[in-house]
Amino acid sequence: MARRSSTDYDPLIMSRRIITSIDVARHAGVSQSAVSRAFSSNASISPVTRAKVFEAAAALNYRPNRIPAIMLSGRSGMIGVVVGGLSNPFYAFALECLTVSLRAAGFQIMLVHVDDALILDAALDQLASYRVDAIITALAVGTPEAARCLSELNIPAICFNSRIVGPGISTIRSNNSASGFRAARIMQECGVVRPVWLGGPVRNAASRERRRGFLGALATDNGTGKSVTELQGDDTYESGFTAVREYLRQGHRPDGLFCSNDLMACGALDAFRDHGILSCPEDVVVIGYDNIPQGAWQAYQLTTFSQNLGAFAEVAIEILTEVLSSPDVAISQKRMIDAELLVRGSTMRKAPVSR
Amino acid sequence: MARRSSTDYDPLIMSRRIITSIDVARHAGVSQSAVSRAFSSNASISPVTRAKVFEAAAALNYRPNRIPAIMLSGRSGMIGVVVGGLSNPFYAFALECLTVSLRAAGFQIMLVHVDDALILDAALDQLASYRVDAIITALAVGTPEAARCLSELNIPAICFNSRIVGPGISTIRSNNSASGFRAARIMQECGVVRPVWLGGPVRNAASRERRRGFLGALATDNGTGKSVTELQGDDTYESGFTAVREYLRQGHRPDGLFCSNDLMACGALDAFRDHGILSCPEDVVVIGYDNIPQGAWQAYQLTTFSQNLGAFAEVAIEILTEVLSSPDVAISQKRMIDAELLVRGSTMRKAPVSR
Repeated sequence: MARRSSTDYDPLIMSRRIITSIDVARHAGVSQSAVSRAFSSNASISPVTRAKVFEAAAALNYRPNRIPAIMLSGRSGMIGVVVGGLSNPFYAFALECLTVSLRAAGFQIMLVHVDDALILDAALDQLASYRVDAIITALAVGTPEAARCLSELNIPAICFNSRIVGPGISTIRSNNSASGFRAARIMQECGVVRPVWLGGPVRNAASRERRRGFLGALATDNGTGKSVTELQGDDTYESGFTAVREYLRQGHRPDGLFCSNDLMACGALDAFRDHGILSCPEDVVVIGYDNIPQGAWQAYQLTTFSQNLGAFAEVAIEILTEVLSSPDVAISQKRMIDAELLVRGSTMRKAPVSR
Repeated sequence: MARRSSTDYDPLIMSRRIITSIDVARHAGVSQSAVSRAFSSNASISPVTRAKVFEAAAALNYRPNRIPAIMLSGRSGMIGVVVGGLSNPFYAFALECLTVSLRAAGFQIMLVHVDDALILDAALDQLASYRVDAIITALAVGTPEAARCLSELNIPAICFNSRIVGPGISTIRSNNSASGFRAARIMQECGVVRPVWLGGPVRNAASRERRRGFLGALATDNGTGKSVTELQGDDTYESGFTAVREYLRQGHRPDGLFCSNDLMACGALDAFRDHGILSCPEDVVVIGYDNIPQGAWQAYQLTTFSQNLGAFAEVAIEILTEVLSSPDVAISQKRMIDAELLVRGSTMRKAPVSR
């Protein structure tokens, strides 16, 4: 398949496709400037001329061109959104919430998907060349390279659940550590004596914070000093399934499991079921994080911390509005959004199912 | 929260943020035209001048501006991608595949998320005002209004799994009807005598085609004339769960179920399990469509038709390349991609689990 760059098309061919303001002016019998003024909300133009222009525009299916305004103002009205791992329903939903909020606030979205923060550099260069007004990333990673890339761009950036810091970089985070603390308290209330922590990749800052809160609370547990087993996954369903299956095969019988995210928790629950440990919470108490739709499915009924992604998106718009109207390019904000505990069957005795 | 339009920022503030080619020219001691030529792959410039420009650009963190080239060529290099329902992992993965393929082909993505095809009109107007080169939609809906919107835009459009037709509109579809036929054959091989079809919304063309193939094959089943029960969902997990739970509560005992998509099939499997029908495929044979990651989870082990989304994306790029280089604005292509049958535990006896 022959691929060509998107820039080497013949402009003459293009001119056959797109109706310009010149076409509309000719059709309406007015000047091109009259067409521009007709589509500009605060320009002066007579009602008769405006009506002529709109009639011609409708007849020709003309759409006003945003590009000249971008040239003049340096503002594209586009926000670069950088995501990775849409196979995690949490990130797919984060993108959906962002898309809805940004459009409501009058922005367009230029989407970049990266598999790895290591290739963030090239992606950001491209976003910069289109003069995006700001960049929002919902990547789980926060490498020093990513921070350097973002700072050097001189474009305001907003990062979700990341510990990236730097001039012009704002962050919106879940109260990960406090939620970990709360997960430990629930385990204690359920009488858990063999607690297990299932964490994500080491470079996932949110996972590290959740672990710190969880282990911290258990360590200060009235000096009873329950030792916590730590298992390691990579934030996928499969890694949660495998980690717990191997642990059970070694003969261990955990009675409480806090997972750094819901995908791994679903995998863990399937590993328990596969091992004949069907009864939740009688045999084992499981808690996740994120509130992905699958956690609510009948097979899982997962207690979890819901990250209010609607609120994340709203706060992102607030920060954008402030940052884009400030003369200070290095402005950065840190905002925290409380996660909400959703109690389901994995920590709570089920009501009998009526048939 | 005060929101402002993305266009009413002071350009003077913006000029503090973005390094322009004038800044680079001044820093390098060359003309602005030399800077433009240095960043243009086929312009003539001396190696010494080019080196000076690159050095200054690096020192100032300058990124070339794509906007003037868009003005001149009428080509933005941007593709408008319209999606809906990212909470269905199938659409999230479709977006991921498209994003990767479009970037590899040198395009940028302007993302629009719509909850309903009824608001497609406004979304398409905005895409047109940014002069996107083409539009790709992966919406499950194919209303006449959507077709009219796309055709009037005079921008080439590519639709996934839709029956939208019109000048300039190309479609890429799964072989839905043939897959439905094949699902019926599998049911027959498994000895199913009480088959059930669980369909999506009526306006979902792909669902209608899968149904036609499935029912057609069972009707011509050597004259045995098995009657097929038809249940209706809305493509969500919850609708599949509810439809099958209600059917079971009415006392029916289906032994074969073909679902229009995997999300509903997962819901159906949970409804069977909830009702005490745990044994698959001994008690009931279940087949889905899409190959979402959840279908492979241990709790489901769903036999399904895998839509090769990588191939969908590749074919989309092929069509884009052809359409964008053709002088014929009304060009439209119809392409079919075979779905691949993935056999898992929901139609196949499980191997014993080793512990």
